[in-house]
Amino acid sequence: MSAFNRDAKGVYLITVTPFKDNGELDLASTDRMIDFLLGCGVTGLTVLGIMGEAPKLTAEESKIFVKQVLRRVQGRVPVVVGASSVGFAPMRELSHSVMELGADGVMIAPPVSVRTDDQIVAYFDMVNETLGPDTPWCLQDHPVATGVQMSAGVIQRILKSSPQCVMLKHEDCPGLAKLSTIRAAMARGDLPRASILCGNGGGLFLPEELSRGADGAMTGFAYPEMMVDVVAAHAAGDVERAHDLFDAYLPLARYEQQSGVGLAVRKHLFWQRGVIASAAVRKPGPQLSAADLTDLDRLVRRQTRRLAELG
Amino acid sequence: MSAFNRDAKGVYLITVTPFKDNGELDLASTDRMIDFLLGCGVTGLTVLGIMGEAPKLTAEESKIFVKQVLRRVQGRVPVVVGASSVGFAPMRELSHSVMELGADGVMIAPPVSVRTDDQIVAYFDMVNETLGPDTPWCLQDHPVATGVQMSAGVIQRILKSSPQCVMLKHEDCPGLAKLSTIRAAMARGDLPRASILCGNGGGLFLPEELSRGADGAMTGFAYPEMMVDVVAAHAAGDVERAHDLFDAYLPLARYEQQSGVGLAVRKHLFWQRGVIASAAVRKPGPQLSAADLTDLDRLVRRQTRRLAELG
Amino acid sequence: MSAFNRDAKGVYLITVTPFKDNGELDLASTDRMIDFLLGCGVTGLTVLGIMGEAPKLTAEESKIFVKQVLRRVQGRVPVVVGASSVGFAPMRELSHSVMELGADGVMIAPPVSVRTDDQIVAYFDMVNETLGPDTPWCLQDHPVATGVQMSAGVIQRILKSSPQCVMLKHEDCPGLAKLSTIRAAMARGDLPRASILCGNGGGLFLPEELSRGADGAMTGFAYPEMMVDVVAAHAAGDVERAHDLFDAYLPLARYEQQSGVGLAVRKHLFWQRGVIASAAVRKPGPQLSAADLTDLDRLVRRQTRRLAELG
Amino acid sequence: MSAFNRDAKGVYLITVTPFKDNGELDLASTDRMIDFLLGCGVTGLTVLGIMGEAPKLTAEESKIFVKQVLRRVQGRVPVVVGASSVGFAPMRELSHSVMELGADGVMIAPPVSVRTDDQIVAYFDMVNETLGPDTPWCLQDHPVATGVQMSAGVIQRILKSSPQCVMLKHEDCPGLAKLSTIRAAMARGDLPRASILCGNGGGLFLPEELSRGADGAMTGFAYPEMMVDVVAAHAAGDVERAHDLFDAYLPLARYEQQSGVGLAVRKHLFWQRGVIASAAVRKPGPQLSAADLTDLDRLVRRQTRRLAELG
Repeated sequence: MSAFNRDAKGVYLITVTPFKDNGELDLASTDRMIDFLLGCGVTGLTVLGIMGEAPKLTAEESKIFVKQVLRRVQGRVPVVVGASSVGFAPMRELSHSVMELGADGVMIAPPVSVRTDDQIVAYFDMVNETLGPDTPWCLQDHPVATGVQMSAGVIQRILKSSPQCVMLKHEDCPGLAKLSTIRAAMARGDLPRASILCGNGGGLFLPEELSRGADGAMTGFAYPEMMVDVVAAHAAGDVERAHDLFDAYLPLARYEQQSGVGLAVRKHLFWQRGVIASAAVRKPGPQLSAADLTDLDRLVRRQTRRLAELG
Repeated sequence: MSAFNRDAKGVYLITVTPFKDNGELDLASTDRMIDFLLGCGVTGLTVLGIMGEAPKLTAEESKIFVKQVLRRVQGRVPVVVGASSVGFAPMRELSHSVMELGADGVMIAPPVSVRTDDQIVAYFDMVNETLGPDTPWCLQDHPVATGVQMSAGVIQRILKSSPQCVMLKHEDCPGLAKLSTIRAAMARGDLPRASILCGNGGGLFLPEELSRGADGAMTGFAYPEMMVDVVAAHAAGDVERAHDLFDAYLPLARYEQQSGVGLAVRKHLFWQRGVIASAAVRKPGPQLSAADLTDLDRLVRRQTRRLAELG
Repeated sequence: MSAFNRDAKGVYLITVTPFKDNGELDLASTDRMIDFLLGCGVTGLTVLGIMGEAPKLTAEESKIFVKQVLRRVQGRVPVVVGASSVGFAPMRELSHSVMELGADGVMIAPPVSVRTDDQIVAYFDMVNETLGPDTPWCLQDHPVATGVQMSAGVIQRILKSSPQCVMLKHEDCPGLAKLSTIRAAMARGDLPRASILCGNGGGLFLPEELSRGADGAMTGFAYPEMMVDVVAAHAAGDVERAHDLFDAYLPLARYEQQSGVGLAVRKHLFWQRGVIASAAVRKPGPQLSAADLTDLDRLVRRQTRRLAELG
Repeated sequence: MSAFNRDAKGVYLITVTPFKDNGELDLASTDRMIDFLLGCGVTGLTVLGIMGEAPKLTAEESKIFVKQVLRRVQGRVPVVVGASSVGFAPMRELSHSVMELGADGVMIAPPVSVRTDDQIVAYFDMVNETLGPDTPWCLQDHPVATGVQMSAGVIQRILKSSPQCVMLKHEDCPGLAKLSTIRAAMARGDLPRASILCGNGGGLFLPEELSRGADGAMTGFAYPEMMVDVVAAHAAGDVERAHDLFDAYLPLARYEQQSGVGLAVRKHLFWQRGVIASAAVRKPGPQLSAADLTDLDRLVRRQTRRLAELG
């Protein structure tokens, strides 16, 4: 079984948080989603990320959801919990309680208030102090969402000074050069190896990222089998096959990555695939129009046909 | 006694949250601070605002602090609680629990994600739905902190469609023209009267705002007697006296309003005045240098002298 | 021949500005690029846009470049010139001089300083006053680059009050719903028809935008034949063919749309195709690594193969 | 006579650009303004800064204005010209032409596009390359206007690698700690001495900045004698007198520093003092209301009285 550590590989899927039509947590759909994702072959799960509508949950709901996920997963894959927070007391509270529940680690992105190199590094020193020596964590580099630009040099400083930071979730764009730089520094022994999973634009650069040395993907998409199959083909050395598969899913993946409506697209498709009972997104959130649904029908139909052609 | 309603006047002081040197909530200092502020003559209190380090508290700590404040205040002045939140479930949870504890209302600022006029208005429709018909609230217009520009027209739309929004906390800069426009619209009967309390730059435009029709101030400063005395002099028709008093405090107020170190200045001066037992600010937070303390000594000394001259 | 007016259709290509290796304007390559683009079947040209490195040219260089383009085009297609400017005197100076040189119109995006609905509308009132009654113009809606969010309602207000605004360059994301709303309002006669050309993500949503009523594309890509062929297939009613072609180019288009390195990719490919003599980008600008070139080789090779399969 | 070099001291006044009521450059008022400012005792002039409405001038107008200023100054004080630009070709063109006209140097702020420490330092390497070995320049650190946060460490890196950067215009807020850090590094010999002139909040922290080792002020205010007299008193060792004078002007200075309307206030007061013939600000720009003028009348009257009391 895979573990949440410096050698982690494969696909850590960013889950959605299923709600009922009335907006309540849907724990039955949560179980069904877990089963579906494990069936797809993901090697890990990341819950309460941005696409998990984390800020729309109460502290109590967050714990109920994490508990349900952990109970269903039963340790078959590692579960990482988003625990970014403007303040350290809430970060400590959330991370300690999910670790006690059995989570494998947490994921932390910097707050918009840190700007200069030294401010960013100092912030993560405080993160280390907050999480303590027993909580492995993943550093999330996602400037579009956070507003924080971390250079390759800054990321290396953080990784060096963070014994428990075992993974980098890389989603800067353009980020291929950054990925190459960090991987090369690890190869030279300038800093300890950490797992690097990619999520740039929701996986929109996955084949190229794998060629640059990424260990896999940490992102979400209504067809998680895309990431699983692309990573597998690439790992097997069949780079052209990895591209073929990726290209077949790309038109839909691109559509799902429209910021603002993407989550509604993903939940609609999960609902359509029978994974969750309702596509409900909590307010404030996007809604799909009839024209959007027409677009999706076409894209799914074309994707199915193209995958059949590829065999 | 004053009430948190459309006719509220005077000074609603934004409190700090006292901590011990080790970072724990300091409830004894909280009591002492309440006594001090009521002794200064404030007509209301606003807790868990930006300067109250709200995001650095756990949900549990927030409730403990609010409970302590309410117990000490004993209904002598209204207490308003900051309840802005990216998500509506946490906003509902916090606002309902503080109202049950006995708070008089909540204060809400828009999240950075809303930009256009219609997005802002739609957001506050959801706020009204979230808070329900029994929670009076104050609209906080503070673009420097929120990143959201609300025009005078948008604020009027919100006030018109929000039966429970009884107060505007006005802290846009430049904002004098906006204040005049909104007050004039209320005077013409275009929208119902609401209380307008000002906090622009920490009260740095208080005399001018009072002349434009503000009902008072909602802000913080290590010398709350400044706002109380300026508002009283202005209300008594002695505008020159109001300016004289304001000008005497202005050099220190300006110094305290430096974004980033301001909270450390305020807590240091409260500590120096014996109001709180420790000037501790939770991480990540500013610290004062020896040179800062030298500046403060000079400014306080000069302020004391100038106030004595004024009599 | 097409004209820059409310009925404009097809593809207005955003040109690059060719430089020599030493950074000087390359007028010979400019001629060759014009010939190439007209050969691709574009129906218009837009110069001095963001991807034209406009802010890196002196005022003198801008005029030399526009003059060269106009001389080579010889009126075969309309030429629109980017003339956005923080100040109105420079906007007037540039737009008047290019119109005198023979340009067909200008393109204007709002400056980051305007935020509220009324500020945006008032800004474009001043634009109309600046450009005068004889300069047709295109409104550029590109929030990612400008930082300005214009709602569908605001765009309609601008179009209604701007007799000379004949075209909307639509590149908001997500923007499909906005496009549908504005097109429907025109269809109902709520506002005069204007041409709507799309550039969302460099054309990454082109087939869907055409289905929503866009008149074509205004964007750039190293393979302008993609936009020309997709628009033609769609106009001929063969929507599946439009998607097939689009999907074949999508992996490369996606790669070229990486913000930051995209322009270097585009110029490299233009150079590789023999369109321009040098891929030089003026400082500060991106450079491609060996790994980037390897990616591009693979993507071009796969694209060629896929297009051959499609026939 | 003072020179624009590493030992510069005193007050470099940021000038406005006078316009006629019809918006044209007013060269007669320009002359009168120069005479007035030199009469106030300023030791240098900075033209075409943000408060000089530089982006609203055409390239031609900028040169006409600079030429007029230089002709009138006749070398009596150094003249520095704002030459920040997104592109290096326009920066080179403007800086070389004003140096040829006889300017003493230029002032450069970073563009919003640079974020990380290394990006900022690399940008100024290109600035040095652009300006060449014969153009002394001033580094402007003004995050509120530029959006760029330069840490004390980054500023030291720039100063070390820029032989022609002779001055730092310091206007970060809070910035007192940064000023102390940089001055201390110069005192230790870690980097060569450079002049440090302050403009934080339009001079709102001038006495404290002088105590931290600033060499003077580079900012604007309708009463330039304030900065001149405060700097002189401080230089003469009478720190209390420096504070007394500063405090007398502070209520008006604070009012003039309201972002957005500040320039209209400054030009109104210059007009009222007979310095310029019209208070016109080019569009888009602020306008003063009757209530604003009432505020100003009171503030000027009170300021005059307070200065008389001080003697």
